[in-house]
Amino acid sequence: MALFSMKLDNLKALFVNELRDLYDAENQITKALPKLIDKSQNPQLKAGLKEHLEVTHGQIRRLDRIFQMLNEKATGETCKGMKGLIAEGDEMVSHSGDASVIDAGIISAAQRVEHYEMAGYGTVRTYAELLGHREMANLLQQTLDEEKQADETLSQIAKTINVEAKAA
Amino acid sequence: MALFSMKLDNLKALFVNELRDLYDAENQITKALPKLIDKSQNPQLKAGLKEHLEVTHGQIRRLDRIFQMLNEKATGETCKGMKGLIAEGDEMVSHSGDASVIDAGIISAAQRVEHYEMAGYGTVRTYAELLGHREMANLLQQTLDEEKQADETLSQIAKTINVEAKAA
Repeated sequence: MALFSMKLDNLKALFVNELRDLYDAENQITKALPKLIDKSQNPQLKAGLKEHLEVTHGQIRRLDRIFQMLNEKATGETCKGMKGLIAEGDEMVSHSGDASVIDAGIISAAQRVEHYEMAGYGTVRTYAELLGHREMANLLQQTLDEEKQADETLSQIAKTINVEAKAA
Repeated sequence: MALFSMKLDNLKALFVNELRDLYDAENQITKALPKLIDKSQNPQLKAGLKEHLEVTHGQIRRLDRIFQMLNEKATGETCKGMKGLIAEGDEMVSHSGDASVIDAGIISAAQRVEHYEMAGYGTVRTYAELLGHREMANLLQQTLDEEKQADETLSQIAKTINVEAKAA
């Protein structure tokens, strides 16, 4: 969210503010994911994270399109929430230990990231609907659906990894 | 999650690590919520956040009980994720603007916090089940249900506030 104090006089201003927060969050994710992909050992997890990196690029393009439609700049905010979540993921892969336990920890960190995005996109989708921006609402709903799907995929992958971690 | 490098040799170690993360997160929330309660204008929102502060104290007591059962210390971790999320909430209430727009922003920040906890408690509940700690799994499920309920309550309150924010 906004780094500097700004005037939130109406829902439109809050909508743009939140979109910028998510835009920065997504860009942080594209920089952080390669490290998690590199450090993960389970092939399914590695492939799942790689796929999500591709999906994230598409989500950024959707946000670019929305900023164009709104005639607003995309940048200017630092998403402190995502910064903290990514720091947690970095910490997780800095630990030594059993590979499957670290993989389980990577999933745990990644699901916190997904949940952040689910909350964020749910909010801006609702704002877009209220503001009568139907096309933007559709685009944001697509991303929301992808985040939910990514979270579900991680839960599925975790089933195997957690059992391996338990046996470690 | 862990501030210092630690050995994650098995699922039990990861379980304790994640519980400590959530313990610190909950304690951060109890310190941050009074400010959001103070700054929120809508009576329903104020009451909802107040109620959640009470619920959070109960959630901390559940974690205390789990640490006792595990014979492990509760403290030692700083939850960087929650730190970032709370910083976002603080930023939100530092903005000037229409009261209902700020209220909508408070809900948005609070829902990110709820989602963090939903992800975190979902993870530790699953670990507890896998490790055969049925009573702990039940306690963690209770908290998870409360977090989902809190998120739902915020969505309901947002319906009125967002319409007011739109009319601002």
